[in-house]
Amino acid sequence: MSDTEPCFDVAHLGHVELLTNRPEESLAFFVNVLGLTESGRDGGSVFLRAFDDYEFHTLKLTAADTTGVGHVGYRCASPQALVRRVRAIEALGCGIGWSDGDLGHGPAYRFRDPDGHVFELYYETHRYAAPEGERPALKNIAQRYHGRGVCVRRLDHLNMLAADVGAIRDFMPKALGSRVTEQIVLDDGTVAGCWFTVNNKSYDIAYTRDHTGRQGRFHHVTYAVDQREDVLRAADIFLENGVFIETGPHKHAIQGTFFLYVYEPAGNRVEVANAGARLILAPDWQPVTWTEAERKKGQAWGLKTIESFHTHGTPT
Amino acid sequence: MSDTEPCFDVAHLGHVELLTNRPEESLAFFVNVLGLTESGRDGGSVFLRAFDDYEFHTLKLTAADTTGVGHVGYRCASPQALVRRVRAIEALGCGIGWSDGDLGHGPAYRFRDPDGHVFELYYETHRYAAPEGERPALKNIAQRYHGRGVCVRRLDHLNMLAADVGAIRDFMPKALGSRVTEQIVLDDGTVAGCWFTVNNKSYDIAYTRDHTGRQGRFHHVTYAVDQREDVLRAADIFLENGVFIETGPHKHAIQGTFFLYVYEPAGNRVEVANAGARLILAPDWQPVTWTEAERKKGQAWGLKTIESFHTHGTPT
Amino acid sequence: MSDTEPCFDVAHLGHVELLTNRPEESLAFFVNVLGLTESGRDGGSVFLRAFDDYEFHTLKLTAADTTGVGHVGYRCASPQALVRRVRAIEALGCGIGWSDGDLGHGPAYRFRDPDGHVFELYYETHRYAAPEGERPALKNIAQRYHGRGVCVRRLDHLNMLAADVGAIRDFMPKALGSRVTEQIVLDDGTVAGCWFTVNNKSYDIAYTRDHTGRQGRFHHVTYAVDQREDVLRAADIFLENGVFIETGPHKHAIQGTFFLYVYEPAGNRVEVANAGARLILAPDWQPVTWTEAERKKGQAWGLKTIESFHTHGTPT
Amino acid sequence: MSDTEPCFDVAHLGHVELLTNRPEESLAFFVNVLGLTESGRDGGSVFLRAFDDYEFHTLKLTAADTTGVGHVGYRCASPQALVRRVRAIEALGCGIGWSDGDLGHGPAYRFRDPDGHVFELYYETHRYAAPEGERPALKNIAQRYHGRGVCVRRLDHLNMLAADVGAIRDFMPKALGSRVTEQIVLDDGTVAGCWFTVNNKSYDIAYTRDHTGRQGRFHHVTYAVDQREDVLRAADIFLENGVFIETGPHKHAIQGTFFLYVYEPAGNRVEVANAGARLILAPDWQPVTWTEAERKKGQAWGLKTIESFHTHGTPT
Repeated sequence: MSDTEPCFDVAHLGHVELLTNRPEESLAFFVNVLGLTESGRDGGSVFLRAFDDYEFHTLKLTAADTTGVGHVGYRCASPQALVRRVRAIEALGCGIGWSDGDLGHGPAYRFRDPDGHVFELYYETHRYAAPEGERPALKNIAQRYHGRGVCVRRLDHLNMLAADVGAIRDFMPKALGSRVTEQIVLDDGTVAGCWFTVNNKSYDIAYTRDHTGRQGRFHHVTYAVDQREDVLRAADIFLENGVFIETGPHKHAIQGTFFLYVYEPAGNRVEVANAGARLILAPDWQPVTWTEAERKKGQAWGLKTIESFHTHGTPT
Repeated sequence: MSDTEPCFDVAHLGHVELLTNRPEESLAFFVNVLGLTESGRDGGSVFLRAFDDYEFHTLKLTAADTTGVGHVGYRCASPQALVRRVRAIEALGCGIGWSDGDLGHGPAYRFRDPDGHVFELYYETHRYAAPEGERPALKNIAQRYHGRGVCVRRLDHLNMLAADVGAIRDFMPKALGSRVTEQIVLDDGTVAGCWFTVNNKSYDIAYTRDHTGRQGRFHHVTYAVDQREDVLRAADIFLENGVFIETGPHKHAIQGTFFLYVYEPAGNRVEVANAGARLILAPDWQPVTWTEAERKKGQAWGLKTIESFHTHGTPT
Repeated sequence: MSDTEPCFDVAHLGHVELLTNRPEESLAFFVNVLGLTESGRDGGSVFLRAFDDYEFHTLKLTAADTTGVGHVGYRCASPQALVRRVRAIEALGCGIGWSDGDLGHGPAYRFRDPDGHVFELYYETHRYAAPEGERPALKNIAQRYHGRGVCVRRLDHLNMLAADVGAIRDFMPKALGSRVTEQIVLDDGTVAGCWFTVNNKSYDIAYTRDHTGRQGRFHHVTYAVDQREDVLRAADIFLENGVFIETGPHKHAIQGTFFLYVYEPAGNRVEVANAGARLILAPDWQPVTWTEAERKKGQAWGLKTIESFHTHGTPT
Repeated sequence: MSDTEPCFDVAHLGHVELLTNRPEESLAFFVNVLGLTESGRDGGSVFLRAFDDYEFHTLKLTAADTTGVGHVGYRCASPQALVRRVRAIEALGCGIGWSDGDLGHGPAYRFRDPDGHVFELYYETHRYAAPEGERPALKNIAQRYHGRGVCVRRLDHLNMLAADVGAIRDFMPKALGSRVTEQIVLDDGTVAGCWFTVNNKSYDIAYTRDHTGRQGRFHHVTYAVDQREDVLRAADIFLENGVFIETGPHKHAIQGTFFLYVYEPAGNRVEVANAGARLILAPDWQPVTWTEAERKKGQAWGLKTIESFHTHGTPT
């Protein structure tokens, strides 16, 4: 038996802020092609959401002179849980401090992961209230299934690049109470990739090694669709809209999700994925470790991992 | 802000014991048609599991002179959480006491819900270890995708009948820490149906009103498949195998799952379902309440709810 | 061995003219919800097409003070074949005469079926040439996969109502060289339904008995989608757009197609369907005959045929 | 207008004889993994069929000391059409002569294509009569949907290798009355690939250039499944059964089919594919020509064509 209990302080990944140096083109991609809906604007930022995201936004798209990730937000399970997490993070010595929040949520505590990416934790949120014309026919979804573009359902996960993934593997369980569900450990012991979850999803954030050795870079953001057929249909939509398809559709060996990777106009990588009915239900799930030899086999059905997957990150 | 925190003591629905008075035919259905795999036998019981269930079993099929549910098991998140739950249940005055467990798990504390169904809580479990010939090509699933019959992925949820669903609505949050995700409340205030979850699944157990007024009856057990196409394919498999299809495939208005209902040879109702990418991520999810008028509209795309859905339960 | 050879004079169903007394609403449905594209206008008619229809149009939507079918067009396999068919039809005594054609095709010979529906045969056609902005990424499809609404691929088939389906069963093979692929014959010998094809599709037109005894009425037009998942997705799109769903999605017992029926705003019934990989390849296919008892079983997976399916036709 | 009429003498591809030097393993693959059903044996040959093939067999698997194709059979549309085709082929000077047929069909006329592959034409066939236990629940399919392995629906097409594809492009229309639907023409005018059909399928046979310069070799046989999801499911079944996956699943640029390629145990390449609702309905379809530059773009969504696709044929 374990002597410490699993931590449930953090409820779920909430949102990501992406930076774009082609704000109009990026916005057109996210709205018309990926099928997100704008819920608000503030300064140089546009707040976007998938049709069944329950919060005000899951993507904050911010005009900038660079690309990559601005910050990442996770929502806590309760006000008390937020307090506990802030205390834990302060003890780790990586805290930045409190912000007032933005259009999407209330007060948030910011901190840095060991690779320099900025995160924030919050509890008070702004629930999306569908305006006339966006109300769903069935009251248990957040917004109507509008059918525009890929029409993704909800934010799924993020993938960060990091110079030292092993350091992240130590950090995340302490900071967020995350569990490691799968990882790649090379023959020399280097952690080349690590998948984390705070809930029953098989992962809400992954870190993979930045082969360039740089820090703070972004690999991709993933939105979930309901069926693998939606991923296949997305491929045709991307093709017809001139979106660069990097790799896929195919099935990941790690986590088993069905994936498709594209670049939005500013170069940030975006994934559309479906996990089937797979969930991590075991409270004492044991991390699955993939060896260097296993990774060389490629993806689930034999597709070789594309070279740019190891080199392309944002900012480039 | 809430002043009490959400409860995470119970990790997930673990298994159900079904009684059958046609044990050989029922077993043939569950193994050859639904595609479960036998993991053990003990006395008059056969232990069965879907290919990605991580525990030893999720269905205990027990020969009996009747049908319906024997008991329902939930796994706790930790030994400490199990202790807390037992204390809470004892305080509710509905406890039965400890059992030693069975082939599938360790010590379990049994209790009765207000309608008389028997439940048990446990922490120590027997993880499935795939024997030679059943090992998966990819190490992150519990057993190979064998492709036999419907080849369901994992246990999804149960549906019980109850004379007084309102009493259950009060009980479950106290006993298991469950949250109500959706419910049907009739014009006279009667709770006609209630959907509960202990984790991010939209529900792991539902209760609907037993129109006969009897107690302790069973409505159905549901196994999840990865795609809606798997549900459609299941319909052809059931058709070709002479299995009685009660209703579906169609999409539920409540919870939005894509469903198909059949009766196994002894008459217990079995559902095959797919929820797409829908999850309950909000820690403060507000229950969705359906009115009598809304329910009269039928299922999501207009299919009228079949009459037997309100009358057929086991034992009959 | 047969002593007469199969007839290949008629290549395929070409188009249908539908009448609408709500022209603007009907057009909005066909373009924005079903996903057809306008290719031209002439007088009170709008010419519409699915993204992979190779001809200028497959639906001619004509404003009128009634609903139902204007006429049906079939394209012949060659100029010589057109001459042969005209000769055969004239011999049947049901010819109307030549027209100059319209925006979509050249000279056409018109005739009436025994129930009074107007048909035309033509060879010269106007192939669709995708304008800038509608050109596909892959040159082997007629137009880009635009992803708007249901985004149907091509015209599939029509269903007419007739007072005497038996008379139609005799007529179609003589007029068009059609083959009967399936039929319903009641216990008293009445032909209640008949499915015809001129090529490898399992049917391009069906006739079912008009229980009202009226003549010349229309039952439905069907557009094909590539996958059953597209039919399921269509159901959500119809639901969210307030389109009346009559029945489905489900699988037909007859012909095995996966179907969904809705009414466009003027009341004409429209089907979205997928036939899987099923084709009629046998040149000497023997008609499949369904008895009254077999039809009472309902659709493939047990859905009862909805009452309005026997009574609703246009004009109403 | 054309002055010659299209030819409809040949109804469809009927069967292929494959040679295997690992007969037991090959048979186990085709029956248990691909999901064909044995309908008979004669000498060293096993006759196999997909569940909705209407003829006795579509694959004749013959034990040999080599691999590759034995012969290919096409069924004519009538006895008279068979006579016409034999006359045309004799005029081409490539006839071999009549055989008595085999378990699957009556008298057949054999000939060689310019690359030396053996073909036969026949009309009299042996329709499959499902024995007790294989009868379908719905009488319009040839055999029950048994759900075993990939459970392919019907034979779809073949792909041959040829030293001179240009010669084949001239030959097939004259011999079988085939139409060219798509082709690859290199910058120097060489025909690198050519796709032919005798009916509404987009192709029933393709020829691609044998980069080794050898003659009479075989590239692959394809069985059709009803949905793209069946192709994805097939990938998992192949993976779990240790079948070598060469490439896919992905969508072909040419013809747009969704594909997956594997090698059966003797090395013959087998494809599982789905064409969606695409058909060639135009009687005057104009061949789509792909240039060298266009082919370098890879498959529809960007997958690079795998090198072995140009080099692996049987016999090796």
